[in-house]
Amino acid sequence: MSLIKSFTEGQEITDFFLLKAADIKQTNANPPKEYFDVILADASGEISAKLWDVSSTDKETFFPMMLVKVKGVTQLYRDRLQFRINKMRKVTDEDGCSIKDFIKSAPIDAIDLVNTIKSVSSSIQDQDLRSIVEFCIAKVGDKLSHYPAAKGMHHAYYAGLAYHVVRMLELGEFICKQRPFLNHDLLKAGIILHDIAKTEELNAEMGVVTEYSLTGKLIGHISLSSNWITEAALHLGIGVNDEKTIFLQHLILSHHNLGEWGSPVQPQLPEAVALHYIDQLDAKLQAVEDALNSMNDSDEWSAPVRVIENKQVYRAKR
Amino acid sequence: MSLIKSFTEGQEITDFFLLKAADIKQTNANPPKEYFDVILADASGEISAKLWDVSSTDKETFFPMMLVKVKGVTQLYRDRLQFRINKMRKVTDEDGCSIKDFIKSAPIDAIDLVNTIKSVSSSIQDQDLRSIVEFCIAKVGDKLSHYPAAKGMHHAYYAGLAYHVVRMLELGEFICKQRPFLNHDLLKAGIILHDIAKTEELNAEMGVVTEYSLTGKLIGHISLSSNWITEAALHLGIGVNDEKTIFLQHLILSHHNLGEWGSPVQPQLPEAVALHYIDQLDAKLQAVEDALNSMNDSDEWSAPVRVIENKQVYRAKR
Amino acid sequence: MSLIKSFTEGQEITDFFLLKAADIKQTNANPPKEYFDVILADASGEISAKLWDVSSTDKETFFPMMLVKVKGVTQLYRDRLQFRINKMRKVTDEDGCSIKDFIKSAPIDAIDLVNTIKSVSSSIQDQDLRSIVEFCIAKVGDKLSHYPAAKGMHHAYYAGLAYHVVRMLELGEFICKQRPFLNHDLLKAGIILHDIAKTEELNAEMGVVTEYSLTGKLIGHISLSSNWITEAALHLGIGVNDEKTIFLQHLILSHHNLGEWGSPVQPQLPEAVALHYIDQLDAKLQAVEDALNSMNDSDEWSAPVRVIENKQVYRAKR
Amino acid sequence: MSLIKSFTEGQEITDFFLLKAADIKQTNANPPKEYFDVILADASGEISAKLWDVSSTDKETFFPMMLVKVKGVTQLYRDRLQFRINKMRKVTDEDGCSIKDFIKSAPIDAIDLVNTIKSVSSSIQDQDLRSIVEFCIAKVGDKLSHYPAAKGMHHAYYAGLAYHVVRMLELGEFICKQRPFLNHDLLKAGIILHDIAKTEELNAEMGVVTEYSLTGKLIGHISLSSNWITEAALHLGIGVNDEKTIFLQHLILSHHNLGEWGSPVQPQLPEAVALHYIDQLDAKLQAVEDALNSMNDSDEWSAPVRVIENKQVYRAKR
Amino acid sequence: MSLIKSFTEGQEITDFFLLKAADIKQTNANPPKEYFDVILADASGEISAKLWDVSSTDKETFFPMMLVKVKGVTQLYRDRLQFRINKMRKVTDEDGCSIKDFIKSAPIDAIDLVNTIKSVSSSIQDQDLRSIVEFCIAKVGDKLSHYPAAKGMHHAYYAGLAYHVVRMLELGEFICKQRPFLNHDLLKAGIILHDIAKTEELNAEMGVVTEYSLTGKLIGHISLSSNWITEAALHLGIGVNDEKTIFLQHLILSHHNLGEWGSPVQPQLPEAVALHYIDQLDAKLQAVEDALNSMNDSDEWSAPVRVIENKQVYRAKR
Amino acid sequence: MSLIKSFTEGQEITDFFLLKAADIKQTNANPPKEYFDVILADASGEISAKLWDVSSTDKETFFPMMLVKVKGVTQLYRDRLQFRINKMRKVTDEDGCSIKDFIKSAPIDAIDLVNTIKSVSSSIQDQDLRSIVEFCIAKVGDKLSHYPAAKGMHHAYYAGLAYHVVRMLELGEFICKQRPFLNHDLLKAGIILHDIAKTEELNAEMGVVTEYSLTGKLIGHISLSSNWITEAALHLGIGVNDEKTIFLQHLILSHHNLGEWGSPVQPQLPEAVALHYIDQLDAKLQAVEDALNSMNDSDEWSAPVRVIENKQVYRAKR
Repeated sequence: MSLIKSFTEGQEITDFFLLKAADIKQTNANPPKEYFDVILADASGEISAKLWDVSSTDKETFFPMMLVKVKGVTQLYRDRLQFRINKMRKVTDEDGCSIKDFIKSAPIDAIDLVNTIKSVSSSIQDQDLRSIVEFCIAKVGDKLSHYPAAKGMHHAYYAGLAYHVVRMLELGEFICKQRPFLNHDLLKAGIILHDIAKTEELNAEMGVVTEYSLTGKLIGHISLSSNWITEAALHLGIGVNDEKTIFLQHLILSHHNLGEWGSPVQPQLPEAVALHYIDQLDAKLQAVEDALNSMNDSDEWSAPVRVIENKQVYRAKR
Repeated sequence: MSLIKSFTEGQEITDFFLLKAADIKQTNANPPKEYFDVILADASGEISAKLWDVSSTDKETFFPMMLVKVKGVTQLYRDRLQFRINKMRKVTDEDGCSIKDFIKSAPIDAIDLVNTIKSVSSSIQDQDLRSIVEFCIAKVGDKLSHYPAAKGMHHAYYAGLAYHVVRMLELGEFICKQRPFLNHDLLKAGIILHDIAKTEELNAEMGVVTEYSLTGKLIGHISLSSNWITEAALHLGIGVNDEKTIFLQHLILSHHNLGEWGSPVQPQLPEAVALHYIDQLDAKLQAVEDALNSMNDSDEWSAPVRVIENKQVYRAKR
Repeated sequence: MSLIKSFTEGQEITDFFLLKAADIKQTNANPPKEYFDVILADASGEISAKLWDVSSTDKETFFPMMLVKVKGVTQLYRDRLQFRINKMRKVTDEDGCSIKDFIKSAPIDAIDLVNTIKSVSSSIQDQDLRSIVEFCIAKVGDKLSHYPAAKGMHHAYYAGLAYHVVRMLELGEFICKQRPFLNHDLLKAGIILHDIAKTEELNAEMGVVTEYSLTGKLIGHISLSSNWITEAALHLGIGVNDEKTIFLQHLILSHHNLGEWGSPVQPQLPEAVALHYIDQLDAKLQAVEDALNSMNDSDEWSAPVRVIENKQVYRAKR
Repeated sequence: MSLIKSFTEGQEITDFFLLKAADIKQTNANPPKEYFDVILADASGEISAKLWDVSSTDKETFFPMMLVKVKGVTQLYRDRLQFRINKMRKVTDEDGCSIKDFIKSAPIDAIDLVNTIKSVSSSIQDQDLRSIVEFCIAKVGDKLSHYPAAKGMHHAYYAGLAYHVVRMLELGEFICKQRPFLNHDLLKAGIILHDIAKTEELNAEMGVVTEYSLTGKLIGHISLSSNWITEAALHLGIGVNDEKTIFLQHLILSHHNLGEWGSPVQPQLPEAVALHYIDQLDAKLQAVEDALNSMNDSDEWSAPVRVIENKQVYRAKR
Repeated sequence: MSLIKSFTEGQEITDFFLLKAADIKQTNANPPKEYFDVILADASGEISAKLWDVSSTDKETFFPMMLVKVKGVTQLYRDRLQFRINKMRKVTDEDGCSIKDFIKSAPIDAIDLVNTIKSVSSSIQDQDLRSIVEFCIAKVGDKLSHYPAAKGMHHAYYAGLAYHVVRMLELGEFICKQRPFLNHDLLKAGIILHDIAKTEELNAEMGVVTEYSLTGKLIGHISLSSNWITEAALHLGIGVNDEKTIFLQHLILSHHNLGEWGSPVQPQLPEAVALHYIDQLDAKLQAVEDALNSMNDSDEWSAPVRVIENKQVYRAKR
Repeated sequence: MSLIKSFTEGQEITDFFLLKAADIKQTNANPPKEYFDVILADASGEISAKLWDVSSTDKETFFPMMLVKVKGVTQLYRDRLQFRINKMRKVTDEDGCSIKDFIKSAPIDAIDLVNTIKSVSSSIQDQDLRSIVEFCIAKVGDKLSHYPAAKGMHHAYYAGLAYHVVRMLELGEFICKQRPFLNHDLLKAGIILHDIAKTEELNAEMGVVTEYSLTGKLIGHISLSSNWITEAALHLGIGVNDEKTIFLQHLILSHHNLGEWGSPVQPQLPEAVALHYIDQLDAKLQAVEDALNSMNDSDEWSAPVRVIENKQVYRAKR
């Protein structure tokens, strides 16, 4: 099996891929001809591809997010590798392929991630905080197991959100040992809930965000998470003006730190300061790690990484 | 009766004032002596004052927000007028003074302002929006009649909040006539609720903000208003994901326009754009009008006005 | 008649349009062939189009800003609708078409707009201010009836400038009733003159700006308007150092509010503050209204609107 | 004669000084006593001083900008040297003092500076540019010989404006030799006129700015200079739309480079780019030189210099 | 023993303190009298104090950073507690006081901190990196055991620098376990050296920075640390252009992340990203912890904390 | 001989050019065909060109930075002139062409520039400064004679760096005459060394930067130059903490003035202030001069110039 990430120029390939996009376009010729402008993907990356002669059957056969078997050859076009498809067919049951093997995922199994989150959640000793967290986890339902953490900034893949939360919980535990003055219950609750309304802000399938939802655009995940806490408190009979409720909302609302980054208030509780910087540390390092993993074997520099000022990262020889 | 705003140097004054602040301080002398460092106020302005010989009776007699009769003289100190108190006594019932006459107030009676707001509120034709607005008005209670709109930026006086809302409602009505594509119901609701949680964000008495509340600092009035709408919707059985609920929250959340001004999302509904600019127009012009009203008769330039980049405003001769 | 804004994919069209642009280009074929890359427009919008086989007669027949009759079909290309022209001919007198029907215009007739401006101008009671305003209106000549208010930000169509001014005058009148301390004469003069030198800053035809003029680039409309006032004052024998002259120049110079938005001084007169925020309110709401009017019937979100931070606007179902 | 700049702690002084400020203040004692809070100055610097026992005669004798003879002693107060006056009297004719000897001045004689400016002005070969420049020089009158270039940023002393212009003319001549593509006439005109309206923007006496004028605040020297050019062109029968007029106005309007620094347009002519950077180079270096000259002999670091980001400058031992 | 942090109004105190500052000042009386304006400190905080009658012996007896025994009383002055000293004497050997007990220190013993740093340093497996680190540690000498990490931002106390480094090393170890793709050797070296030249940038005694050194102002600790690495490499015969040398310099140079925060280059190695965010997390949380520790027992809100946008931190009741 | 800069549409050309780039690409045809996408250059400018039928011999014959003789015709494509190559061959010795004649160069001969720099260098009277400068010049070697000063901002051509330095030295000499308080030795050294490590930061051939080096990206020329001075001082036995060494490093480190422009410290020596503004003046004016020189004969406005806020420059008719 050949990973897309390891493709080189002029290679002949016959293999299974995910048809991530499949647009019918027309050449500039007169009369114009139709062709398929395609993105092929596997878990290692993706490549732009063309299928030049498109029959009317083809147009009714191939659709995005379908698994296909293709035969073709890699070519260099404007300094970038692309793929010329000579043959393409749908995958059948006999091929024994599962879509989960062709998409990017967190390196830890989604079920394990969700279990960890639930287990940490049930370890929160303050009953009110625990109930609010569990109410929100229940509200998310099974999206918790597969949602990405963002559209493209970081953790943008299957179970990316849960993976981000789990790593932050580990860091939070370490920091609370280093600094016992921090309220571990509050920090745990803040970490689990900080991005939880991304499941309402974003529309995503198989770990890929297709768009922001109407609610996502008009309210945003920060205020949505805060609304969920109000809803949970009212439902559970916890006062919306109780310090616990206010503190937890403060953590969520302030976790982007500055107004220009989307936070209507700035951190003023120790745990809010901790939450912001734990989030930063995890998001930035993951974005760097993902960028390194997406590099072709021959590259020295990664693609520009948005969350570190669009800088490229250098991969040292080991 | 002599208005503070019209005081000139070397004037002898015997009159009633509000004792807005009254701190006991010590001179640098050795041994130090105690004196009262005082702020006297009336509806036209305020002046710093000193009462040099303080008896122990005095210390148990005079407290902030008390009405007093004083006798003394104005003096120039470091280019600013201040007042030297020679005699001071508490006001008695016979003096027939009411504290309301000594504080800054909106130029329209508070009762009329509240009635206007309630009347506009009941004119909202959409039943859900109307119910949410009325729920929030009920929640505020009588604070609606006397709260200021801010600590010092604009409308910082008795009934300033209600006055700001009424003026904006007038403007909103005009704009909706000019531009019928706007949803007047939604704009009315947005105007009435946009600053309503300032009553929870700020602690205020007699139109003067003493401090931000804990909730005010940690959540802020923008997110608090949004929370109130969630609460109202849940209480009234309106869906928290209904477009009406979302639209109204969007108006509140986006009404400061930019992240660095406190809004976690930016206006994306026509009424949200209208709300922001109506708010701006009213707040800035009121701040200018208030600054002109606070000028001494002999001044050409007002004090710096914070909401217009700390610029001073020139008062033309008419 | 089919409006461009309502075109859908695969529609056959035979109708009149404005040929807004008509560039001769070459295909990548070897040898390359020439084709027309065209923009067709009507009052509802515009669409990119191609005429693939171009004869040498065609090249001498078709030029921008000409009315044409075309026959062709709509196609989807890279997710955007474009038009394939099969036949195209010039419009003849018998077709009975007028170019005014094919361009975007203000919703009020240009003559009425100009009359309103002149009528408000003659209502200015201060004789000096009135004379300066009338001098500038005379200087602009008939450009006042058709110039747009900007290249693309807002009011970018036939008579857009006059429409913007009229709406602002209405708002100004309302505000002066709300706040009688404002000098209505000065505000009227400021509103009429604030963008008047756009007629010198921009080169425009039929409501479309083709480019900035040399003077526009080197001086800009703000300083140009200020120069015009100096010129008017000298011509009319009004002192250039009279408060009226200075106040009016101050309103013009400060109406963009901040230095980074082009104003060399910041508002320091009440009417200057009013002018800036009235301008803002009108420009932003008009940009939103125009964006909604330009949406295709099936869209939920408008194109990004530059003057509101490039945000898209959501169109609610009514 | 003892220079203020060389004063050390505990020194007894009897000498002539300029009474730059003389405020009557009151001690905190009860009853308070009056004293003179004074600034003494000579050409080398200034020092804060107190005269503790003030008679009513004193109050009618001593006023700012008067020359006095004082006897007293230097003292350290809150880490800064100040002066305790024991005796003070007005200067008489017999003392033979001239105020010019007690104020900061440009290091070149004002008459020579003005002559240089006029001589360069008459060397401008283009007749229109020369006439405009000469019109403006005539308009300024004798303020050209004594005005400072700013309130405190740089060249804030007697003849500072003329000195700044002369140094820039020298630099401009050098640059035009290095780069013959520059239009020397235009650059000369731009240098002479770039700050010329500071004489209208600022109210100044003896090289010291007391305040901004009304016109200065509302219009600013950049737009004022531009207005002057319009006035000159109209008066001289030169077209206000002639390239020369526009170019010269462009140089003036753009010479602060960015909008946030006060320029409504940015440099787009080579001479405008040259003018801005010549102005920068001269202003910054002069501010540094002035800061070094104001240092006490024992200091290693100057006071913070506003125009170089409030940095202090280190004076190396030679 | 009474801790300064627990002082309340009107308390009589007789105890040992550090005389952190002792300035001789003069009253405003006529003739003025001399008094001592003093800062008394212990490990819990500091308080402003006055000794009103100063003899000439006193002036030769008391100097900053001396231990004293004082008797006096606490007073409220302008809302702040201060201390009136009635008696003061120098500490003698019999008093058995050590200055170390009166200054703020890291909560871990300096010797242990230094040992940890040295031990981590010797655990670096790459010989070149280890040698460079050890060269720099040797160059710092015993300053490593007592220097603060900053003038006032964070870790501003005895051994603050070493404490900051040790905590970061712990965090670095944790992160390298979470993310094995990171080069632990490089990160260890970067953490130890990132602020090491603060020992040259700042002049400090007993954990208190008195001022920036000349080199500190002109070069800054970031470039100084980079210079040290060049020096180490040349001394040790390691190529200045070796990747190791360059990588380590990159970590140091980029550790403030952005240009406006002092870094001439931005992080482009994974370890550089890690270093920046580990530094942030530790510095911010320590500043918050220090602010909480400095609060009086009755406070709800801390003093403004500079490194978190000057926000105050709320201390929840436990 | 026809200069590229003077090409007009439809011109037939047979001449020698530099093949600055030569990429093999494929048409969109099916099957795709290969063609050469080429940039032809001479000293006056460059033009995009196509050679449509590429043989396999061609692919082994033509490479970038080779001189060729071509025959073809100019065409307009998307409003820009490009060139269609009909014939192309390599240059032979008989053609008598030298690559130096086909690239952009400084207007002064490289040898003369280097001689000037060395001569100024040897005129530095302070022996330590002179030795450090000469050490660095020796380290650069012959790159000094041909390196450009930047990738594209200014002086981006053969010997651009040396030309920039020489012009700045001339300006520096003039300024030191105007202001004798400046240390001319230090300024000379600063000017020569300020950009010297661009020779290590950039990879360049024939005056064209191909990319930033690894060291250039991770360290940057500012810190590299500072490192070189450390190296020079250690090698020459000059103290790295001597004021001279520190001063020179300060000049280099601060010469971009602000942190966001890449300087880790800001100018705090008079010569550092001078260096920054001399650098600015020379770089901006050169960028403008180069932009004017690159204009086609028929243009009125230059291409946008990056270093002056991307503004275009107007070329006045003379």
